[in-house]
Amino acid sequence: MEETRYDVVGIGNAIVDIIGRCDDAFLSKHGLQKGFMRLIEARQAEALYGVMGPGIERSGGSAANTIAGLASFGGKGAFIGRVADDQFGKVFTHDIRAIGVTYETPPAKSGAPTALCLIFVTPDGERTMNTFLGASTELGSGEVDAGLIASAKVTYLEGYLFDKPEAKEAFHTAAALAAKAGRKTALTLSDAFCVDRHRDDFRKLVHHGVHILFANEKEITALYEVNSFEEAVIAVRGECEIAVLTRSEQGSVIVTSKATIDIRPEDVAEVVDVTGAGDLYAAGFLYGLTRSLSLADCGRLGSLAAAEVIGHIGARPEKPLHALARSEGLVS
Amino acid sequence: MEETRYDVVGIGNAIVDIIGRCDDAFLSKHGLQKGFMRLIEARQAEALYGVMGPGIERSGGSAANTIAGLASFGGKGAFIGRVADDQFGKVFTHDIRAIGVTYETPPAKSGAPTALCLIFVTPDGERTMNTFLGASTELGSGEVDAGLIASAKVTYLEGYLFDKPEAKEAFHTAAALAAKAGRKTALTLSDAFCVDRHRDDFRKLVHHGVHILFANEKEITALYEVNSFEEAVIAVRGECEIAVLTRSEQGSVIVTSKATIDIRPEDVAEVVDVTGAGDLYAAGFLYGLTRSLSLADCGRLGSLAAAEVIGHIGARPEKPLHALARSEGLVS
Repeated sequence: MEETRYDVVGIGNAIVDIIGRCDDAFLSKHGLQKGFMRLIEARQAEALYGVMGPGIERSGGSAANTIAGLASFGGKGAFIGRVADDQFGKVFTHDIRAIGVTYETPPAKSGAPTALCLIFVTPDGERTMNTFLGASTELGSGEVDAGLIASAKVTYLEGYLFDKPEAKEAFHTAAALAAKAGRKTALTLSDAFCVDRHRDDFRKLVHHGVHILFANEKEITALYEVNSFEEAVIAVRGECEIAVLTRSEQGSVIVTSKATIDIRPEDVAEVVDVTGAGDLYAAGFLYGLTRSLSLADCGRLGSLAAAEVIGHIGARPEKPLHALARSEGLVS
Repeated sequence: MEETRYDVVGIGNAIVDIIGRCDDAFLSKHGLQKGFMRLIEARQAEALYGVMGPGIERSGGSAANTIAGLASFGGKGAFIGRVADDQFGKVFTHDIRAIGVTYETPPAKSGAPTALCLIFVTPDGERTMNTFLGASTELGSGEVDAGLIASAKVTYLEGYLFDKPEAKEAFHTAAALAAKAGRKTALTLSDAFCVDRHRDDFRKLVHHGVHILFANEKEITALYEVNSFEEAVIAVRGECEIAVLTRSEQGSVIVTSKATIDIRPEDVAEVVDVTGAGDLYAAGFLYGLTRSLSLADCGRLGSLAAAEVIGHIGARPEKPLHALARSEGLVS
């Protein structure tokens, strides 16, 4: 097999987050379902921004956060996703390149502005997301660079791509290219509502095509329409090589056909904002996996990265993750 | 005298901050003088952004931060300053209105984009600022609303306005309108280099026209070209009604013709980013002053607000300052 130039290439929506604080009453008043992501149109985004408190802007996007995290560990990452040629597009492009990720998808020169996610963070640190996909929906198979996919050990795809037909096509193109090149494909289920929208597609993918699956408890139980985490573990076992199931303060569980590995969560002084916790868990896990570490150590790297990102506002790491991993003795 | 609708109207540059971390070697390599603000052109901004690490975007601007802080205490504030009709302009406008400030300056429809400040934060929490004034320089006397100035107890002006002729004219117009309406004028010296650029003008203003002066140790010693803080206190005493001199971890000193009041600094667990410390000190002080609190309590409110803002990234308060002040027993 050809040598790889990248550890992971991620494909996803290229989003700038606008993060504000609110209380639970605000969520109820505006009909926002706590802890979930919903898609909104431009007009809704404007109205919701109008009632939001002061914000903080940071680059986001699920797969983009994961690849940024991978780079912060010292991994070689690339990202494919579409911004517009506007100020937020420049911010997204700057941030992902500045952390060391290869990002060459050309910005859309016309049409909708760069995707935005209005994120409301409640005092418990939970985040409720409202995504205006904007220019992100301009991603299609044409932007999926075959050479790039072939040159990465893992192609990482976010489930959110299924929400638009062109992006879904890009997803399938990338998965096919990875398979053809003999590379691994990883999938994150993204969100329980996203699973509800695309359950059949996701089940087929997990059964055939995806090697590594990332899901939290809500997502994996939604995928198999079961009532307990334990039933979900039974359902997913053997469906793909590795299922990585995260459970917030209960840690995470790694399921292969032959083993179940429990990973304890890292201690966190204060949960400030859980945005990006799953994305960064995937970053640490994939960093370890592409270095052939044990699955237990991959899980610990995931927990470490998740713990860093929930300790502050925003979904990108603030501290270099490689130094954190070294201080824990997980890497040299 | 007519009743006032506002406690403070602030006039200043309307800026969005892009905040990134760096080490001291980075500052040296790029010729950045630690702790100061310098003006840069569009091309320099682009080059500097290109070498900056991943950023966080937050609304900024010295006087704008102060008015936002005042509003967070529960004060009635208004702001005059110019953004462009672009994404960052919308962010600035949203954030200042969302915190409760009246902001009605129309965005510039053509010309330069919204002002940006590239802020580099070193591990010691010190910030080094590089400002591209952009659309901010489109502020002129025409944007200074006479009715607004007359309806505010205090007109608060940032020294940075002197860096462009039109803004300087707006500054003088506002000060004259405030005087005519029998209101107070407050000035912040902004930055020691800014003082070097406009020393004679600032000295005249402090001597005649300004009632309340805000300056840190570097700025006040630069204003009077003296070598010690003690000499600066002697020089400024009696020049204006109240001189409020901040000294970082040494607290602050309030100087009137008849008294010198020492204020101890608040304890801060970790200095994360000092951006906005002076701006927020002024916010607390003016909030107290416009409620006729004692000068000592005005100083304590200033210290409280400064301590909040240096505990996190960015120059706008994250916690409601009124609740903090109440928990300290400073307001009811």
